[in-house]
Amino acid sequence: MVQNITDVLLEKIDEKQNPCIVGLDPRIDQIPEHVLDNSQRRYGNTFEAVRDAIIEFNTLIIRAIYDTVPAVKLQMAFYEKYGPQGLEAFLRTARFAKEHRLVVIEDAKRNDIGNTAQAYAEGHLGLVSLIDGFAPSLDVDMMTVNPYLGSDGIRPFIEVCKERGKGIFLLDKTSNKSSGDLQDRIVSVERKLKVYELIARFIHNLGQEQELVGERGYSSVGAVVGATYPDEAKSLREIMPRTLFLVPGYGEQGGTALDVVPCFNPDGYGAVINSSRGIIYAYKKDPNLHPEEFAVSARNAALKMRHEVVSALRQHQRIPSHWKS
Amino acid sequence: MVQNITDVLLEKIDEKQNPCIVGLDPRIDQIPEHVLDNSQRRYGNTFEAVRDAIIEFNTLIIRAIYDTVPAVKLQMAFYEKYGPQGLEAFLRTARFAKEHRLVVIEDAKRNDIGNTAQAYAEGHLGLVSLIDGFAPSLDVDMMTVNPYLGSDGIRPFIEVCKERGKGIFLLDKTSNKSSGDLQDRIVSVERKLKVYELIARFIHNLGQEQELVGERGYSSVGAVVGATYPDEAKSLREIMPRTLFLVPGYGEQGGTALDVVPCFNPDGYGAVINSSRGIIYAYKKDPNLHPEEFAVSARNAALKMRHEVVSALRQHQRIPSHWKS
Repeated sequence: MVQNITDVLLEKIDEKQNPCIVGLDPRIDQIPEHVLDNSQRRYGNTFEAVRDAIIEFNTLIIRAIYDTVPAVKLQMAFYEKYGPQGLEAFLRTARFAKEHRLVVIEDAKRNDIGNTAQAYAEGHLGLVSLIDGFAPSLDVDMMTVNPYLGSDGIRPFIEVCKERGKGIFLLDKTSNKSSGDLQDRIVSVERKLKVYELIARFIHNLGQEQELVGERGYSSVGAVVGATYPDEAKSLREIMPRTLFLVPGYGEQGGTALDVVPCFNPDGYGAVINSSRGIIYAYKKDPNLHPEEFAVSARNAALKMRHEVVSALRQHQRIPSHWKS
Repeated sequence: MVQNITDVLLEKIDEKQNPCIVGLDPRIDQIPEHVLDNSQRRYGNTFEAVRDAIIEFNTLIIRAIYDTVPAVKLQMAFYEKYGPQGLEAFLRTARFAKEHRLVVIEDAKRNDIGNTAQAYAEGHLGLVSLIDGFAPSLDVDMMTVNPYLGSDGIRPFIEVCKERGKGIFLLDKTSNKSSGDLQDRIVSVERKLKVYELIARFIHNLGQEQELVGERGYSSVGAVVGATYPDEAKSLREIMPRTLFLVPGYGEQGGTALDVVPCFNPDGYGAVINSSRGIIYAYKKDPNLHPEEFAVSARNAALKMRHEVVSALRQHQRIPSHWKS
């Protein structure tokens, strides 16, 4: 019997006493110059050089933070933009993170219907058919999925979650300014129900199946809830009590430690808080450090974020009782 | 000044007298055995063998249909499931289609916010930054985008459309059974406005900018409208008079030639109708043909579809006046 991924993730959150995760969003214009120079020396000005620089950068970040965080989130857009070489960098990064016992969350926001949704689920979470037999392909632990197409676009992902102990996070209330264009529209006047609340009920119901719920009570069907909307988070926590929240928008996007508190249940669990730029490019705001030590800045920023979030949780009595103070 | 992609596409539709396009959705369990055997002989039972088989299959299909259709649609899910090798097959297929003067539409349904949406737009439609300077990457002509995150997730795609003469199709009313879970919800009671109608207004407005509108009056911001919902298509055609519709769901999914008529304007333009399985795997239903001649079946199926759709358009007086009868 495969272990439910939410149990794995919660175990790591306890082990590190940290619900904060690091987003690995590699950008050529942000990676330190000495890393780029080395790659260019090896591969010239090519897509291979970009692949090499991304792998080198990510590897050093992972080495610096793996003992303090439970998971990393890889934003697929920054990899696939470089085509085959970008996907190679994605695969190598994901593998390196797993070797360091981190849960690998892919932020890909995939969505489609029927057999096509199944192809995404197989490629990212499951097994793909070779000419003879099957093999894992991208094989991440959890991924984000967009719910616009309705339930028959989501079921294929859920089936793979059951079979292989994987997890998904369905977009609900996203962290961006214009998320309300559609998500805040009222779909039921008598109940004052907004789109994101409708989707929340939908996520809660989809995740109820026994086979999806881990030993600690959380479902492997999670939700994306932006750190920038704390009031909405509060009502969503009520609609989806046993749903794990993936919370983007912390730090550079404006979400604070106080803002993310409503994403947690009273027992101190229920959310993972992501920061990308604020951690991995912290070296840019650290004048005392040489760029070659960028990974030290990342570690310091990750420790600072943990301190901020855990302090806010403690202040509001939303911290696991056995965590040390 | 770059040519608007809608003008390019309409020109090819006129040249081929055909608004039907072919979906290249490669599936290992559907590709003829002799193709798989050849690839396996060359590369063993590997991801490279799958890449080789997909390229071989697609190449032969394109050779058989390129003179009869204006465009091909590549469903990204079936490529990216094979990781770097899958993306290599995607790139090689797209390049081969362009060499055969076909418009290349990528069905990827991407969506994200801010800089991340920009990364998708650059990678799929625009230029990506190498260590020095910029280069095209996936470089398709048009792609599908999911609107769930609102306008700030779509603007980066629109900017690239303007700069490089590319196009997008925003998901509106999709062809699947459960598309109504969210898309059919009423968001304005007094006006009886449903989510897909709200999104249609949004698409219409986004596409109005002068720079996006081609010489023939269509905007490079298009919409996905499923063939399986003809009544909805009729009202959507009214809300979005100058929006190009990408229409999936024809054939195997149940949409008929009659069903797609409302997707067209009275002048006979305004929609491209896609069929994937019904064309490229037609050989499976063609007992008189040897599997080695699968491409002949595909050509016959593409010609049959053109005949059906054009006949239905003629019957309802929605055909360009200068097309021969």
